[in-house]
Amino acid sequence: MTITLYELTAADENRRFSPYCWRIRLALKHKNLSFESKAWRLTDKEAIAFSGQGKVPVLVHDGHTVSDSTAIAFYLENAFPDRPSLFGGEGGRALTRFCVDWTDNVVHPAVRPLLLKYIHDLLRPEDQGYFRQSREAQLGMTLEEFCADPEKHLVTFRRSLTPVRAMLQHQPFIGGEAPLYADYCLLGAFMWAHSVCTLALLEQDDPVADWRSRMFDRLDDDSRALKFHAA
Amino acid sequence: MTITLYELTAADENRRFSPYCWRIRLALKHKNLSFESKAWRLTDKEAIAFSGQGKVPVLVHDGHTVSDSTAIAFYLENAFPDRPSLFGGEGGRALTRFCVDWTDNVVHPAVRPLLLKYIHDLLRPEDQGYFRQSREAQLGMTLEEFCADPEKHLVTFRRSLTPVRAMLQHQPFIGGEAPLYADYCLLGAFMWAHSVCTLALLEQDDPVADWRSRMFDRLDDDSRALKFHAA
Repeated sequence: MTITLYELTAADENRRFSPYCWRIRLALKHKNLSFESKAWRLTDKEAIAFSGQGKVPVLVHDGHTVSDSTAIAFYLENAFPDRPSLFGGEGGRALTRFCVDWTDNVVHPAVRPLLLKYIHDLLRPEDQGYFRQSREAQLGMTLEEFCADPEKHLVTFRRSLTPVRAMLQHQPFIGGEAPLYADYCLLGAFMWAHSVCTLALLEQDDPVADWRSRMFDRLDDDSRALKFHAA
Repeated sequence: MTITLYELTAADENRRFSPYCWRIRLALKHKNLSFESKAWRLTDKEAIAFSGQGKVPVLVHDGHTVSDSTAIAFYLENAFPDRPSLFGGEGGRALTRFCVDWTDNVVHPAVRPLLLKYIHDLLRPEDQGYFRQSREAQLGMTLEEFCADPEKHLVTFRRSLTPVRAMLQHQPFIGGEAPLYADYCLLGAFMWAHSVCTLALLEQDDPVADWRSRMFDRLDDDSRALKFHAA
């Protein structure tokens, strides 16, 4: 059995900043699956053309190619049912969909304007042009305009975590006593930031910072060896 | 076996407006458990003094008294494990905590300023004074001030449902192919509104309105007989 994961990297291939790739890296570790990580950069479209689309993560397992992080997570759960579960049963699988969509549609839009300029500056020169052009076309403004007023965005980001703070009054992880895939989705948003800047996303006494510490404590050695600022 | 549920009502006892009581009513129906509903009003503190606190829902099952809706849901799942599950397994139970806290901390604060004045006006005269005084002390302003600018609050409420809309692109219920407790929590927020006013909380073409229709379709006859505006 071989598993290959294509992961987005900055110019420095130890700087892995995609929140979606982090989800799958963490999901593979959760299932104790070893994998070959292939560094992939934004304009390397031909390297993943075999997947029929142009984004990572892309997972290849014994000839099966899967793209889209949620689809990969579901695939891994089905392909390795005897390994530790990412969802904790059928109800967990269904509710994970809501947690993913909350992360993608509430947390990510809140953290994104804090990061895009940092990301741009860490890409290979040949990727910077693509990044700027594609993002600015999507945003309808320059990266600099989008990333202006970081204090305001930081307030929005911290406020977006209100339900997590409430949850943490009752249990240490979204998954209960131990992390499940929903925790990895949220950690992905932090890794996105911490791999590209030293911004203090959380106040020190924020219960979410404790959760993040618990998640960092569980990182495997391979992931710890990557470049990120753990605070 | 007897189960008694104390449910909050307006002056008219067929007008049940507590989102937390709706969660438990729907959870009991989900488990096909029959129960005696006791109408309870805000100042009837002595009627539930036996529960050691002053809020509903309060559930009494064969001598066990449980208050707090989430605690009651967990109690029902444990007490009736062979009945249809509210969570769909351990992962689902854990992630339900997040869904509950998202509903309580994001959806409820968004819908509340649309409703408090309507609720006040539907209470018994003797409950109106208590309601106004306790809420205004908590809010630091009059009910009228809090409920000003409903258009703004409606925009906030609709925006709060963004992750639900995203989820509905993939599955018909938060619980997957059928509702779980997390769906009842969200429906509770709608029943809170629809039991006290005719406000169009959602635009007709909102996918959340389709979800709400599917939830209404599954309501039992007892619940349908209560007073609410289904739109």
